[in-house]
Amino acid sequence: MPRINFHQQLAALKDRLLGMAALSQQALEFSVEAYVSRNGGLCTHVLDIEKAINAAETVVDEMAHDLLAKEQPMAIDLRFILSVIKINGDLERIGDQAANIVQRAMLLKDSAQISLPVDIQTMGEKAGLMIRTAIQALLEADAKLAESVLLMDDEVDDMNKAVQQELVEVMQQRPEVSIQALNAIIISRNLERSADHATNIAEDVIFWLRGSDVRHNMLLAEAD
Amino acid sequence: MPRINFHQQLAALKDRLLGMAALSQQALEFSVEAYVSRNGGLCTHVLDIEKAINAAETVVDEMAHDLLAKEQPMAIDLRFILSVIKINGDLERIGDQAANIVQRAMLLKDSAQISLPVDIQTMGEKAGLMIRTAIQALLEADAKLAESVLLMDDEVDDMNKAVQQELVEVMQQRPEVSIQALNAIIISRNLERSADHATNIAEDVIFWLRGSDVRHNMLLAEAD
Repeated sequence: MPRINFHQQLAALKDRLLGMAALSQQALEFSVEAYVSRNGGLCTHVLDIEKAINAAETVVDEMAHDLLAKEQPMAIDLRFILSVIKINGDLERIGDQAANIVQRAMLLKDSAQISLPVDIQTMGEKAGLMIRTAIQALLEADAKLAESVLLMDDEVDDMNKAVQQELVEVMQQRPEVSIQALNAIIISRNLERSADHATNIAEDVIFWLRGSDVRHNMLLAEAD
Repeated sequence: MPRINFHQQLAALKDRLLGMAALSQQALEFSVEAYVSRNGGLCTHVLDIEKAINAAETVVDEMAHDLLAKEQPMAIDLRFILSVIKINGDLERIGDQAANIVQRAMLLKDSAQISLPVDIQTMGEKAGLMIRTAIQALLEADAKLAESVLLMDDEVDDMNKAVQQELVEVMQQRPEVSIQALNAIIISRNLERSADHATNIAEDVIFWLRGSDVRHNMLLAEAD
């Protein structure tokens, strides 16, 4: 019964990817918490999670590669494995964004904690929700749910643009807090980029389930 | 003679990817030129190239997918197709970075042109050289050449770090040029990230030729 074995292997691959997704989501959410609360221990923890994500990426890639080589899957199974390979890359990049955020947070440890006109917490929650929703769409094989992620991306993009404008003004008026403002700008971009990766994941879920490539359509005509 | 046909298709896939690589490299090099010379026409041209890159990405992905579905390739051929899929994604993201750079350049059109302690031109040349070298390694199936790209990445990383530090000082001392300094910081990051994509491409070339995954080893232990 080689096909039963094959489907068990596909399920194992999906489980492994979902485990990695949980790590990426956690890394991002912890990174925002670490920045907001200036928690150095949590920063280190995020860097540890990021290492675990990198290790998981290699394992998922090898599993996917082995399945392609040994089973020569067709149609939806092939699309699933190709989607896994791409989602794997996006999850790893979310881990990179989280690592970037805590590296910024660690740079701030000697600067005064000031209030800035930027809500990194809410941006982080929105990006986190997009990642969780994309992953749930993968878990439940739900293309409609994946579509809802694509619609959420604009909100994070708009928040990021607003942050940039407001913080440039802060820099001009209060040069003594330039470092804090710059870090907030960069972290806002890290979150916007994480939301883009969630969007990519949702697109890959749709490709897996429907076989249609939804990237670069009119709905999503924007650069990274 | 199905195998001859198969190898013709692999060659066609490689040609298509190399065509796309030429576009990505061009987009990045033009974007730096457009920023340095404040050339609005060139900015628009880069955005047009980026659209062409996005279209090419979809074509390459479909070709790779068709080959996997119809030919069930093994060993080095399978690794080649998987590498093409990943390189395709990195080339598309280099196009995104180029688009980001010209968007920044366009924001500057009403700001005074000032001298900043940052050599975007040289950073752009280094990132461009990394992309060209990675592509040449792909073209010539040269894993040693691909390895040389990995060593070049540190230089761009170091330049980016230095830029960040120096420009924060500029912001503190000359708040009236905060916008220009911030744009230079962001463009420096775009170039550093483009260099990372070149590194990813080189790693994929090595994986294709040697079958070993060189990501996340000690040499490259850094976050995005």
